[in-house]
Amino acid sequence: MDYVYGPGRNHLFVPGPVNIPEAVLRSMNRNNEDYRSPAVPAMTKTLLEDVKKIFKTTTGTPFLIPTTGTGAWESALTNTLSPGDRTVSFLIGQFSLLWIDQQQRLKFNVDVVESEWGQGANLDILESKIAEDTAHTIKAICIVHNETATGVTNNLAKVRKILDNYRHPALFLVDGVSSICAIDFRMDEWGVDVALTGSQKALSLPTGIGIVCASPKALEASKTAKSVRVFFDWNDYLKFYKLGTYWPYTPSIQLLYGLRTALDLLFEEGLDNVIARHSRLGKATRLAVEAWGLKNCTQREEWVSDTVTAVLVPPHIDSTEIVKRAWKRYNLSLGLGLNKVAGKVFRIGHLGNLNELQLLGCLAGVEMVLRDVGYPVKLGSGVAAASAYLHNNTPLIPSRI
Amino acid sequence: MDYVYGPGRNHLFVPGPVNIPEAVLRSMNRNNEDYRSPAVPAMTKTLLEDVKKIFKTTTGTPFLIPTTGTGAWESALTNTLSPGDRTVSFLIGQFSLLWIDQQQRLKFNVDVVESEWGQGANLDILESKIAEDTAHTIKAICIVHNETATGVTNNLAKVRKILDNYRHPALFLVDGVSSICAIDFRMDEWGVDVALTGSQKALSLPTGIGIVCASPKALEASKTAKSVRVFFDWNDYLKFYKLGTYWPYTPSIQLLYGLRTALDLLFEEGLDNVIARHSRLGKATRLAVEAWGLKNCTQREEWVSDTVTAVLVPPHIDSTEIVKRAWKRYNLSLGLGLNKVAGKVFRIGHLGNLNELQLLGCLAGVEMVLRDVGYPVKLGSGVAAASAYLHNNTPLIPSRI
Amino acid sequence: MDYVYGPGRNHLFVPGPVNIPEAVLRSMNRNNEDYRSPAVPAMTKTLLEDVKKIFKTTTGTPFLIPTTGTGAWESALTNTLSPGDRTVSFLIGQFSLLWIDQQQRLKFNVDVVESEWGQGANLDILESKIAEDTAHTIKAICIVHNETATGVTNNLAKVRKILDNYRHPALFLVDGVSSICAIDFRMDEWGVDVALTGSQKALSLPTGIGIVCASPKALEASKTAKSVRVFFDWNDYLKFYKLGTYWPYTPSIQLLYGLRTALDLLFEEGLDNVIARHSRLGKATRLAVEAWGLKNCTQREEWVSDTVTAVLVPPHIDSTEIVKRAWKRYNLSLGLGLNKVAGKVFRIGHLGNLNELQLLGCLAGVEMVLRDVGYPVKLGSGVAAASAYLHNNTPLIPSRI
Amino acid sequence: MDYVYGPGRNHLFVPGPVNIPEAVLRSMNRNNEDYRSPAVPAMTKTLLEDVKKIFKTTTGTPFLIPTTGTGAWESALTNTLSPGDRTVSFLIGQFSLLWIDQQQRLKFNVDVVESEWGQGANLDILESKIAEDTAHTIKAICIVHNETATGVTNNLAKVRKILDNYRHPALFLVDGVSSICAIDFRMDEWGVDVALTGSQKALSLPTGIGIVCASPKALEASKTAKSVRVFFDWNDYLKFYKLGTYWPYTPSIQLLYGLRTALDLLFEEGLDNVIARHSRLGKATRLAVEAWGLKNCTQREEWVSDTVTAVLVPPHIDSTEIVKRAWKRYNLSLGLGLNKVAGKVFRIGHLGNLNELQLLGCLAGVEMVLRDVGYPVKLGSGVAAASAYLHNNTPLIPSRI
Repeated sequence: MDYVYGPGRNHLFVPGPVNIPEAVLRSMNRNNEDYRSPAVPAMTKTLLEDVKKIFKTTTGTPFLIPTTGTGAWESALTNTLSPGDRTVSFLIGQFSLLWIDQQQRLKFNVDVVESEWGQGANLDILESKIAEDTAHTIKAICIVHNETATGVTNNLAKVRKILDNYRHPALFLVDGVSSICAIDFRMDEWGVDVALTGSQKALSLPTGIGIVCASPKALEASKTAKSVRVFFDWNDYLKFYKLGTYWPYTPSIQLLYGLRTALDLLFEEGLDNVIARHSRLGKATRLAVEAWGLKNCTQREEWVSDTVTAVLVPPHIDSTEIVKRAWKRYNLSLGLGLNKVAGKVFRIGHLGNLNELQLLGCLAGVEMVLRDVGYPVKLGSGVAAASAYLHNNTPLIPSRI
Repeated sequence: MDYVYGPGRNHLFVPGPVNIPEAVLRSMNRNNEDYRSPAVPAMTKTLLEDVKKIFKTTTGTPFLIPTTGTGAWESALTNTLSPGDRTVSFLIGQFSLLWIDQQQRLKFNVDVVESEWGQGANLDILESKIAEDTAHTIKAICIVHNETATGVTNNLAKVRKILDNYRHPALFLVDGVSSICAIDFRMDEWGVDVALTGSQKALSLPTGIGIVCASPKALEASKTAKSVRVFFDWNDYLKFYKLGTYWPYTPSIQLLYGLRTALDLLFEEGLDNVIARHSRLGKATRLAVEAWGLKNCTQREEWVSDTVTAVLVPPHIDSTEIVKRAWKRYNLSLGLGLNKVAGKVFRIGHLGNLNELQLLGCLAGVEMVLRDVGYPVKLGSGVAAASAYLHNNTPLIPSRI
Repeated sequence: MDYVYGPGRNHLFVPGPVNIPEAVLRSMNRNNEDYRSPAVPAMTKTLLEDVKKIFKTTTGTPFLIPTTGTGAWESALTNTLSPGDRTVSFLIGQFSLLWIDQQQRLKFNVDVVESEWGQGANLDILESKIAEDTAHTIKAICIVHNETATGVTNNLAKVRKILDNYRHPALFLVDGVSSICAIDFRMDEWGVDVALTGSQKALSLPTGIGIVCASPKALEASKTAKSVRVFFDWNDYLKFYKLGTYWPYTPSIQLLYGLRTALDLLFEEGLDNVIARHSRLGKATRLAVEAWGLKNCTQREEWVSDTVTAVLVPPHIDSTEIVKRAWKRYNLSLGLGLNKVAGKVFRIGHLGNLNELQLLGCLAGVEMVLRDVGYPVKLGSGVAAASAYLHNNTPLIPSRI
Repeated sequence: MDYVYGPGRNHLFVPGPVNIPEAVLRSMNRNNEDYRSPAVPAMTKTLLEDVKKIFKTTTGTPFLIPTTGTGAWESALTNTLSPGDRTVSFLIGQFSLLWIDQQQRLKFNVDVVESEWGQGANLDILESKIAEDTAHTIKAICIVHNETATGVTNNLAKVRKILDNYRHPALFLVDGVSSICAIDFRMDEWGVDVALTGSQKALSLPTGIGIVCASPKALEASKTAKSVRVFFDWNDYLKFYKLGTYWPYTPSIQLLYGLRTALDLLFEEGLDNVIARHSRLGKATRLAVEAWGLKNCTQREEWVSDTVTAVLVPPHIDSTEIVKRAWKRYNLSLGLGLNKVAGKVFRIGHLGNLNELQLLGCLAGVEMVLRDVGYPVKLGSGVAAASAYLHNNTPLIPSRI
C-alpha cells in the first residue's frame, strides 16, 4: 500500500514528476520483453520518428537514454564539448545552478552570467560577450528554457538572433526539461543544437527516460569532442541505429510502451492544443496569485512560465510550512522553494496531463493552506479570478463535441 | 484507449459508480485464480467477517453476490417473502420507484406510500398503517435509506421505533446502496433484517458485488419464503459456508481482492472518520448550492443526504444541458435528473473515496457550467462558501501528523 | 499481496476461470466511469454487435448480464418458459446436474435423460421422446454443449436434426459456458434459441458477465413466458436498447473495456484459428493421457472435449491428492473431480488464452505429481506424445511471419 | 496493444530482462508522487537498509541509480579509479568484453586476461600478476561474476584468497548483474569493494535501477579518485543521505515501490531458498542439454552458471534460427549468441521469478524448435531428464504446506 495513506486522490502539483494519464499507466502495466526480438525495434522506430515532433525538428537525431534530466544534461555536454572549452551559461535559479555545477565538474571553462533569482537570462550580457568573442572562444551557450525553481521562461529565439547577428558558431544547448511539450519550443527554427527533456515532465510518464535531441551540427561536434563518456556516448546509439536494433543496452520495456501512449495522447490532443492548455492554466494560476494579493517570483511578464508558478510569500511566513501543511491536511503536493528562495516561495506546477478543474481544486486548496499559516486570503478569491479566465477561454473537448 | 478522450483526469461526481482508489485498482490488477484452492476460501473468510463491520452487525450473515444493486434487492425480497405478501414501501424517487416495481413484478402486494420527490418517506402514514395492522398482514417494510435520485436520507431509527412501539413483527428491509459506509448505519441497533449495498458505491470498487446482510430473523424467514429463486437463493451460500469453500458459483477473484483492499482502507481511515468525511463534503456542497442561489431538491434539513445533492435549476434551464456541458467542456461527470425530476435537477455525488480538493474542483466546474447555460452565478461563490466550512472542519490526515 | 505466495507464475489449468491475457488486464486497469455519458453506450454498441460473432449469429439478440453462468442459465430459462413447462434435459455430469436442479427449482417439469458420467447426452432417447411428442408438450430441450465436469462435448447439430426431422417446435437452449469461443458453435446454423457463456471461460476475462444470446423465436417466447423474473428480465434490456443507453442497471465499466479487448484479440487471432488452437491443445492433452497409461473419463472419441480433459486415476489413488499436491509443490492449479467422480478424476482445463508451451509445462507438472502420489508414470512420456503432435501441427504465429 | 501479438503468454527465457511477478507489477501500477514529501524518504530508507541483504553486507553503502547495468559499471569505476590506473580485467565473453571496453574508454590502463569463450577467468594468471606486483601498480581487479554470454560463473572466493595471500591492496570490483540474488554472493565475506546489479535481472523488475554497493574501502577511494563524473558521482548521493532526503535527482517512484515489493517477495521466499531454486533450475537445464546430446558452452563443471545456460549447436545449424523460430512459432524468447559465439550458441535464461513448470515448458519448446531446425532431438528427452531431477529436488511451497 502507500507509505502514508490519505483518503481520495493525491493532488500532485509539483513541477515534476507530474500526473500520469490512466492510459499511460495501462500501457506500462506489462511484463518484461526480450528487447532483441523484432517487436521492440519495430516500436522503437516509431518512437524515434515521433519524438522528433515534440522538439519540432525534422533534422535532429533523438536519443532515449535510460537516465534522468541530470543524465540528459551530461549527455548533451560530454558529447559536444571537450574539457577546457568555454561555455556561456546563465545562473537564474536552482536548476541552472546545478547545470553550471555539472559543467564545472566536467572541466569546462564556464562563463557564468548571473541574474537575480526571479529574472530571466541576461541576454544583453550574452550579446556583449558574443560581440566581443571574435575569436570564437565560446564553444557553447547553455541555457535553461524554463527555470523550474523560479518559474522563469527564457527567450530562446532571441538567443538565436544574437548568435546569428554576429555569425557566431557556438553550439546552442537547451535544457527543455520543464518546457518541451508544454511551452512553445522550435528546435529547427531556433537553431538549437542539443535540446533535452525528461519523461516525468510534460510527457507525463514516470522518471526514467532522458530524451535528448541533437542537430546535425551537434552530431558533427560529437566526433571531435574529447569529454570522456561511455554510458552517455551517442556513438553507441548511432551504431545500433544503423544495425536497426536501436539499443546499446537494455531499455525499460514499460517506459517504451508508456512513451508510445504518451505520444499518441499528445498527438490526439494536438501539440498546439497542449501548449494552449498549458498557457491557459498558467495564466489562470497567475490571476489567482494576483487575487490573493501575493507576488509571482518572476519579476517581469515577459518571463512568466506556463508550467510552474513560484509564489512569493510575505516575510513573516515560511513557505515550507505551506508545502507541509498542504500535504498533511489536504493531500495536496506543492513544490518547495529551493536554495536561495527556500522558505520564500512555494511552487504550483501546472505541467503535464492536467485540466482546468484539477487546477481549480489545487487553487482552492492553496487558499485554505494560506489561511492555515496565517495569511488572510479571502477564500474563493483566487478560484474566482482563475475561473473567470478559464470560463472564457476553455474550448470544448474536441472528441466530445 | 478511452472511447472519448479528454486531457487530464475525469472528474467523476455521479453518485455511483464512484472513484476507485489507486490501491484498490492495484489489488485487482491480477490474473484469475482457482477459487477452489485453499487461498480463496482463506481470503473469503476474512471478507465475510470484516464486511459485517460496515453494516455494524455482529449477528448478521453477509452474502457477496456477483450481481448489481438490482440483484441485491431481488436477493433481499425473494429470500424473505412469498408471492402475495404485503409490503409497505415508500415511493420518494427513482430508485425507490424501481424497487417498488420489482416488488410488484415479484408478485408481492405492495402498499405504496408516496411522497413528493424531494421529501423523505412519510413515516406518519407508516405509523398509522402499523397501528391499524393488528392482524400483522404487513410482512415487510421496504425502505431506501438514501434515495439517490433526490438526495433524501430517511430516518431508519424512527422506523424501528414505530415497529417496536406496536410490537409489529414485520421484516425491516433496507436498501443502503448509497448510504452504507458513508452515512451512519446501524443494522443491529436499528433491528434491520436485510441491508444491502453495491460494490460500486461507498466501497469505491467496480460494479459487480451485491452485498446483502441478513439478520437471524431474516434467515429464519428464508426457510419458509416461497418466492422462486435459484441464483439469488441464500441457501446455496449457506451450504457452502458450512463446507468452508464459500462459493456456490465462480466469484470474481479480482473483486474479492479489491474488496479486501477497500475494507483495509476503510478501517485504516476508520469507519467513523469516513462517515465524518462524507458529512463534511455533503455540508460543503449544500453551502455551495445555497451560495449559488439555487435550491436543494431535498425539501427539509432532516432529510439532506451526505452522499448526493440534487440541485434544482431555475425553470428556464434544462438540467440535462448542464450535465452534457460539464462533460463536454470540463471533463466533469455529474448526475442527470431522472424521471419526474429529469431536466429539473442535476446531481453532485459526493460519495466514496473522495477528498476536499476533489470536491472543490468539482464545485468550481459546476459554477462555470452554470454560467455556460445562462445562470448568472458569481464565479467562486460556491467554492468560497464550501471552503469556509471545510477550512474549519477538515482534520489533519492522521497518518501524516 | 497474494494470500498464499509461491515463486514464479501460477499455472492455471482449471477449466475456468482461465488465464487473462495481459492486454485484457491492461484495458481493465481503470477508474470507474459514468455509464450514462455518451462514451459507454458508444462502446456498448460495438460490443453487442461484435459479441454476436462468437455465437455465429446474425439474427440473435445478445445480453451482457452482470452475473455468472448460473445467472445466465436462469436468464435463459425464465425468459422463455413458464412454471410447469416440460423440458427435456440431459444429466451427464455436475454442471448439467446443477442446471437440471435449477430447472426443477424454477418449477419446470423436467424430463431428465440420464447417462453414465463420461458419456454424452443420449440423443436416441431424445429422438424417441420427440417422436412420441406429437402434442408438443415438450417446450424446450436444455443441453450443455460441453460438460465441464467430465470433458464431454455433445453433438448439437444432431439435436437440431432430430427436432427438424419431427418438425418439433421445442426451444433449443444451450449452455455453451465452456465451449463458445473455443469449440465450434453455430447458433444460426443449428437453430439454437438461447445460447450462453460466461466471461471467465473462453473469453478469458474475470468472472462477471453472463453472455446470453436469444434467437427471434426465443424473444417471441419471452413475451408470454410466465416465469417470475426482474433482474434477469430481457425486457428491461430491450427497453434500454431502444433508448440507445443500453443499461437497465450499472454495468462494470472495467469488464466492458475488458470485453472490448478480449474480442479484439479473438478477432485478431481469428475465431477459426482460436478453435483450431483449442482442438490442437485438446488433442495433445489426450495423447499425453494415453502415454501415461491413464484413461480419459470421456468414454467415446465422438464426445471428447477440446477445452477440458477429465483424467481417470487408478482406484488406489485419490485424485484430490493430485490436485492438492500440484498446487502445493508445483504452483499448478488443476480441476478437482466433482460429485460422482470426486476422487476418481482430475481435470486439465485447456481453455482460453493459452499456448502450446504453457500446456506442455502443465503436462510435465502432472507427470511429476503422478509420481508423487505413487503412479509410476514415465517422466517425459506425456510431454513427448503431446509435443510430437504439437510439433507437427502448430502454425507460425501469423503476426510474426 | 502489443506490437506483435501471439496467443497465450510469452515464455521469456532470455537472461534478462526477466519475468516480473504480478505482485511487483501491481505495486508499480501507480501515479507519480512528489519525491520530496516525507513518504518517499521513509520508504527509501527501508530500501537502502534491505538492499544490503542481497549483497550480504552490513558495512557496504548502496546506491540506487536511475540507470542500467552499463551505468552501474561506470559508477563503480569512475568513483574508485583515476585515468591511467592499472586494472586487471578478465575477457571471457561479451559482457566482460564490454566492461573492458568501458574501462579502456574511461582511460584506465587495462591489463586484459583473456580466456577462450566458455572458460572462466584465468585465476592462475591473476595470481602470477599479483605475485609480481609488489609495487602495487594494480589498482583494481575487475571481474564479471557470471558472464551472461557464455553461462560461466567465476570463483570470487578464490580471487579474494589470491589478493589476501599476497596482501595486495587492489580494489575488488564485481559485476554481479546476472548473479546477485540468484547465485551465492557474499560481499563482506569475500571482501568485495564494489558490487553491482540491475533491477531487470534476478530482482525481477523492469530495467531502470542500477544497484551499486560500495565497501568502506571503496568509499575511501572515491575521495581521491580523479575520474570525471557527475551523474554517477556517489558524493551527490552521500550528501542527500545525510540530509535524510536521499535523492540528488528524481527517482522513479514506480521502481521504488516495485523494488520494495521485489525485496518483500525475496525475503518471504528466503534468499537461500531463492538461490537453491536457481541452482535447481540450472541443474535441470543442464541435464536437459545433455539428454539432447548437445554441449554446454561452459567448458568445465566448476564454471557452470545457475542463471543462464549457453547451448552449443552442431556446426551445420545456425543458432540464430533457433531463437527466431522459437519466437515465431512458440512465443518463446531465448537468448541469442553474441559476438564470437553468434550463430554457435543459443541461451536459456533461468533467472529471476521463475518456477519448475515454467522451465519445463521452455525446455519442451526448445526440443520442438531443435526439430524445426533439423536437429534430431528425441522429443521429451530433455524434459524427462530435467523432471527426473526436479521431481526429486523440488520442495513444497512453504506457505502452502
